[in-house]
Amino acid sequence: MADEADSPVDRPQFTDDFRCDFETLLKWRRDVRRFKRDPLPVGKLDNLLRLADLAPSVGNSQPWRIVVVGSEEKRDKVIACFETQNELASQKYDRDQALRYKQLKLAGLREAPVHLAVYCDTDPVQGAGLGRATMPETLAYSAVGMIHTFWLAARSEGIGVGWVSILEPETVSTILQVDANWQLVAYLCVGYPEEEHVDPELERARWQARSPLKSRIFTR
Amino acid sequence: MADEADSPVDRPQFTDDFRCDFETLLKWRRDVRRFKRDPLPVGKLDNLLRLADLAPSVGNSQPWRIVVVGSEEKRDKVIACFETQNELASQKYDRDQALRYKQLKLAGLREAPVHLAVYCDTDPVQGAGLGRATMPETLAYSAVGMIHTFWLAARSEGIGVGWVSILEPETVSTILQVDANWQLVAYLCVGYPEEEHVDPELERARWQARSPLKSRIFTR
Repeated sequence: MADEADSPVDRPQFTDDFRCDFETLLKWRRDVRRFKRDPLPVGKLDNLLRLADLAPSVGNSQPWRIVVVGSEEKRDKVIACFETQNELASQKYDRDQALRYKQLKLAGLREAPVHLAVYCDTDPVQGAGLGRATMPETLAYSAVGMIHTFWLAARSEGIGVGWVSILEPETVSTILQVDANWQLVAYLCVGYPEEEHVDPELERARWQARSPLKSRIFTR
Repeated sequence: MADEADSPVDRPQFTDDFRCDFETLLKWRRDVRRFKRDPLPVGKLDNLLRLADLAPSVGNSQPWRIVVVGSEEKRDKVIACFETQNELASQKYDRDQALRYKQLKLAGLREAPVHLAVYCDTDPVQGAGLGRATMPETLAYSAVGMIHTFWLAARSEGIGVGWVSILEPETVSTILQVDANWQLVAYLCVGYPEEEHVDPELERARWQARSPLKSRIFTR
């Protein structure tokens, strides 16, 4: 099957310096909930999306659908949805934990200059169904790879991303009037962070610290 | 809430050179299905998993569970599961497309020195349920972020990763005898690539090319 155009080429070599900086990027990625209101520079969002679009996808289906939410009215409705669900979530905890929950800052929807709703097309033509017959959830997983790529690319430019999941997906889809085939994967706040931290907000607020990796590795 | 230990610090500055190399990393990440049999150097897998464990997770729950599949017997059973599902998948296409499907190389299970089954604990204690009341699928999405981090870190060391999804998850879980609460997110082949390509295998084989990004961006 190989012809000249298809032949393998020399792979790029990454340096120790690059790997060291990449580890720094992973450590500083963070979920950001405290944003400055400053807009992103012209063209910046487009460039981050261009990089994010390099993410892997099942069957090369590229099933992510990115909705840039600019309408103030629609943003306000999403914020109301978050506030309702956040209140409901707090009621699931006992008194002390509910009080601690309510003190957490879990989203920066009001301040973030950019709102992105990331959807997955659950029945894309592209890819001809390859790779997803037994695990159709790999379509949504492909969208997650796109989001994570976006997150890292943003962080490498000093831009923060916060993933808001305390939302009722159907309500968001009604607000945004998207295709019935689309499944909400994430609602992202994007902008310059007001503060910079190497540790997660939930660890700083003593809600949940990270635990040792060895408890997550098994052999068979 | 801020005290001295919690105060924000100066963020790291990433250079244009780093961002340029990071873009190269994204472009060369690739899903690898053609592996050399050479084992990874001692300690390499542990280091990649350490980096992958820096991935974001809902409520800081770190719900990924990584099974290193070393048993030849279990690997053989997983390979048999792949072969069965791959044959079934080919039967969904009409004659010409089925022939083309069968010519595709979709997994490198026989050659890859490392097999990882990545699971998600669907009811982890860690995180106390935060952020997943309305979207419990964010647990599996967190595992995907871990996998994608692993993939990029591996690639930065010249190591290839292939994500095999043509598997019946329940069969794999039975083979690996994992906790009933665990959901299979991905089965990964890991090793040094036999060939290096900047374009996806499915694009080279003319199964599915990538399409323009603008078709995936919407405004509301």
